Amino acid sequence: MITSSANPRIKQIRKLRERKERQQSGLFYAEGLRIVIEAVSEKASIKSLVFSPELLTSESGNKLISDQSLLGVEILEVSRDVFKTLALKDDPQGIGAVIEQAWLPIEKIDLKQGDFWVALDAVADPGNLGAIMRTNDSVGGKGVILLGKTTDPYDPTSMRASMGAIFSQKLVRADFEKFAAWKRARRVFLIGASGAAPCDYHHTQYPSEYVLLMGSERQGLPENALASCDQVVSIPMVGRSDSLNLAVATGILLYEIFNKHHDQKQEGRL
Amino acid sequence: MITSSANPRIKQIRKLRERKERQQSGLFYAEGLRIVIEAVSEKASIKSLVFSPELLTSESGNKLISDQSLLGVEILEVSRDVFKTLALKDDPQGIGAVIEQAWLPIEKIDLKQGDFWVALDAVADPGNLGAIMRTNDSVGGKGVILLGKTTDPYDPTSMRASMGAIFSQKLVRADFEKFAAWKRARRVFLIGASGAAPCDYHHTQYPSEYVLLMGSERQGLPENALASCDQVVSIPMVGRSDSLNLAVATGILLYEIFNKHHDQKQEGRL
Repeated sequence: MITSSANPRIKQIRKLRERKERQQSGLFYAEGLRIVIEAVSEKASIKSLVFSPELLTSESGNKLISDQSLLGVEILEVSRDVFKTLALKDDPQGIGAVIEQAWLPIEKIDLKQGDFWVALDAVADPGNLGAIMRTNDSVGGKGVILLGKTTDPYDPTSMRASMGAIFSQKLVRADFEKFAAWKRARRVFLIGASGAAPCDYHHTQYPSEYVLLMGSERQGLPENALASCDQVVSIPMVGRSDSLNLAVATGILLYEIFNKHHDQKQEGRL
Repeated sequence: MITSSANPRIKQIRKLRERKERQQSGLFYAEGLRIVIEAVSEKASIKSLVFSPELLTSESGNKLISDQSLLGVEILEVSRDVFKTLALKDDPQGIGAVIEQAWLPIEKIDLKQGDFWVALDAVADPGNLGAIMRTNDSVGGKGVILLGKTTDPYDPTSMRASMGAIFSQKLVRADFEKFAAWKRARRVFLIGASGAAPCDYHHTQYPSEYVLLMGSERQGLPENALASCDQVVSIPMVGRSDSLNLAVATGILLYEIFNKHHDQKQEGRL
């Protein structure tokens, strides 16, 4: 059992809180029973499991540890105090996992029948990113394409907000030029959202395969991004605000398109 | 100029970060130029303005200070260091306001033609509450009714997420029994949301006047709340998640109802 928080393995895992360390190592640390169970069930590539026998009282948690140990996953048994130095919550459940990040190169994305993705340009808030992954999972979206300086989906806040969608959503990172070139080459239908667009999102038809492009919380989409879109829609607002929360706006658009496609299917038009 | 962070007035304002202090005093502290401008334009009851001449470089900010001073509002001039002890951000703009909370008793709510509200039961996350106020403002909703142990709308995170809607949305706090009695007496149409409801929110018609009731992030609506509803709807989910982020779900429902009512108006059915 590791009883020193200065243990080099523990220090290395603790460093995964920092984005730089996550980027360099290609790893992330997920903590809590629910998320570790989801990582296993979604076949994430688990490098090590960390657990504290004093904290991990759950039967399914202990079974998961022994199952994974039999499968050859490295198990780090640590003291309660050491576990707490890794934990972000006050009352940790005593289980965590070091997992390999899963990124897909944009060239690998091929929009098959009914496939759609969300692309995010320079999104700053990890809570928004996580909520968007969660919503996109709920409507059957394939994944999220992160453009420019978009925040890290493996940030603990983003992971938590994704409620497990971090493992089911495919993830792509690209700069805007590469994304635009991919879009042109594959003739992807790109839908942008902008408060200034004259086209009301509700009075529009959408193709079955598409990418929905959303801009940053503060600035929305820049001109060059809007110019790449096949269609730019706006969500009407009748109050004093001139914008919506980004995750809320993305959810409203995704569900509108989802409903339109389902209505069309039922009417036999799709 | 106040140069000591131990100054009793400054200590009192700093204490407004705590919910208990906000409840006891009936006051809250809003920081930043944009939010103070909005407080003034929405005619919030400002008790004092705090500013640091070293930090407040904005012309409109300085004009606001002198205008409000002429109107008799107390102005507290403080040093940069003292201001920073009040600020929640690293790079403060040098202006803040102590403002009276504005609560409406539930008996005062009367649903006139086209009026609608959001009611939240035991909502825990102030970021969600703020985003819901922001969305409700955007669709023209009157305000938010906070039931049970719902978080404080004057929490700094909630205020920031509301993007100014904290001043335009009416706020009511009540326990569930009082709310249910009000609903019955006024014959308010209550729409609840629950993942388990068989009724798809998109295949439903909604009356022009309504209250949309949403449950907590972790538990949703309890049985007694669902039993009070005239209609309970669900948002379909085809992925692996079994719920949506609360602010996202509320936004999807509010905009669906908004669109349905606008479509009906255009078709002359409302």
